[in-house]
Amino acid sequence: MPVETIDRLASELDAQAKTVSAEVDRFFATLLAPTEDSRERFSEAMRHAAIGGGKRLRPLLTVAASRLFAIDRERALRVGCAIEAIHVYSLIHDDLPCMDDAELRRGKATVHKAFGEAAAVLAGDSLHALAFEILASPATHEDPWVRSDLVLELARAAGPNGMAGGQMMDLAAEGQELDLRSITRLQQLKTGALIEYAVEAACIMIKMPADARTPYRGYARNIGLAFQIADDLLDTSGDAAAAGKPTGRDANAGKATFVSLLGEERARQQAGVLVNQAIEHLSGHGSEADLLRAIARFAIERDH
Amino acid sequence: MPVETIDRLASELDAQAKTVSAEVDRFFATLLAPTEDSRERFSEAMRHAAIGGGKRLRPLLTVAASRLFAIDRERALRVGCAIEAIHVYSLIHDDLPCMDDAELRRGKATVHKAFGEAAAVLAGDSLHALAFEILASPATHEDPWVRSDLVLELARAAGPNGMAGGQMMDLAAEGQELDLRSITRLQQLKTGALIEYAVEAACIMIKMPADARTPYRGYARNIGLAFQIADDLLDTSGDAAAAGKPTGRDANAGKATFVSLLGEERARQQAGVLVNQAIEHLSGHGSEADLLRAIARFAIERDH
Repeated sequence: MPVETIDRLASELDAQAKTVSAEVDRFFATLLAPTEDSRERFSEAMRHAAIGGGKRLRPLLTVAASRLFAIDRERALRVGCAIEAIHVYSLIHDDLPCMDDAELRRGKATVHKAFGEAAAVLAGDSLHALAFEILASPATHEDPWVRSDLVLELARAAGPNGMAGGQMMDLAAEGQELDLRSITRLQQLKTGALIEYAVEAACIMIKMPADARTPYRGYARNIGLAFQIADDLLDTSGDAAAAGKPTGRDANAGKATFVSLLGEERARQQAGVLVNQAIEHLSGHGSEADLLRAIARFAIERDH
Repeated sequence: MPVETIDRLASELDAQAKTVSAEVDRFFATLLAPTEDSRERFSEAMRHAAIGGGKRLRPLLTVAASRLFAIDRERALRVGCAIEAIHVYSLIHDDLPCMDDAELRRGKATVHKAFGEAAAVLAGDSLHALAFEILASPATHEDPWVRSDLVLELARAAGPNGMAGGQMMDLAAEGQELDLRSITRLQQLKTGALIEYAVEAACIMIKMPADARTPYRGYARNIGLAFQIADDLLDTSGDAAAAGKPTGRDANAGKATFVSLLGEERARQQAGVLVNQAIEHLSGHGSEADLLRAIARFAIERDH
């Protein structure tokens, strides 16, 4: 790829990532506006978790995938925010003392550290319900088939056969030696399912038949694993400022990761292979897929 | 009402309650079938919480309300089980050490006591997602508008402006003196929203316009409060065996309840008034509403 193209893609991605982040913040600021009763402290806990943090990779993916089919940006953003609500709730619960017992998230105190454990449980549960309220609202799409299918697939991606199932596998793996196949399966559920949904949601919004979605799911599956490897590399490299949370946690916990199993060099190579495969899945598209290509190419080089 | 009619209604209710309980158990046994991987322990935790307990008031209400409009029983039951999945997840999280710190639920060890806190958090989160997967599945209704609206209203009833919001108010009320108005509002969110949805779901399934649903919502709102008063009376009377959990907890925690504010005698009278009002809302219906009438009349006399 010519250097000018690479530069153009990188700066386009930067601009889009900033725009989407600001839009997601605005969306949550409206959705989670202060209440005038005793729920306010919990509402504040939700805003603390949902506003002003993270790279917003999932909404960015939905916005980028929506470009392939010229889907209205507002709609794509609403779907992206529903996914982000699920992602944020899972981080809140994952950080709880009985789970990862984390003190920092996205450079801020975790919700239970700032607001107490009960508030963290309820703030997470509330964001979980809100995600489905967003998707099922006519403002997201005028076609009830689309709304219903968006809900069905998000529920699958978030539940025991998706994200929550991956978290279960992760907990069950403590003190166990997982092999590459088990780690891959675990990550495909824990983080991959939601990333795949973020791309597939665009296909659902144009009512694309399930069997035509293969390349888009393939793209998402490849970058999902590439992101995980990048995350493991970041955890190993120990740059807590870039990660926005303490690093070295996996190694300290004796957890197998892509890096511990493959070594840094091979893990880095593997991420590169996955990125190339992801981009190949988009070969049927022209410049409308450039943002997805840029996400694959550059997003793994940063904290997310 | 003649004694024979009362006897017939009571025994009809008994039979229906038993049937629905068995059907809900079967539904969850299929939905939560053992997994063949490391998620099995969490799957077991979900079965522990979801199968074989409780009076299944919410599914019973949906089945009973569906009779008004001759809705297919299988469909009503699926919707009832989705509501029950939300109810069960909320009990699991409510019982956590950072919330009510309960050891017993429905006569069994709470999920965190039997499986650990992390399993309880994830089992609750998984049931939460599964509720929406059930509703959005074409098996629940062939009309996507109905599926989408079922999801929208359940998400509202479960989230921060419904059940979760009521739990927030409940936590915020600790050590505070709530008045009757605040208690009523708190309970309408915490337990009332889901009970109201259990009845309204039948209206949604026949695409009844929102403004025609008033009597059904009125019925549900009245019995929701009547049930809460009955629950408070049970907690006061201290019959732990009937309650399936330790009693006297609210009084010990210094929490205001309908009973502490009204006294036992007036609370009992108030429940009776609410039951009569609930039944009046059904005056436009004939015998097809008998099961709903029986639930109002008799269900408050038992543990639920």
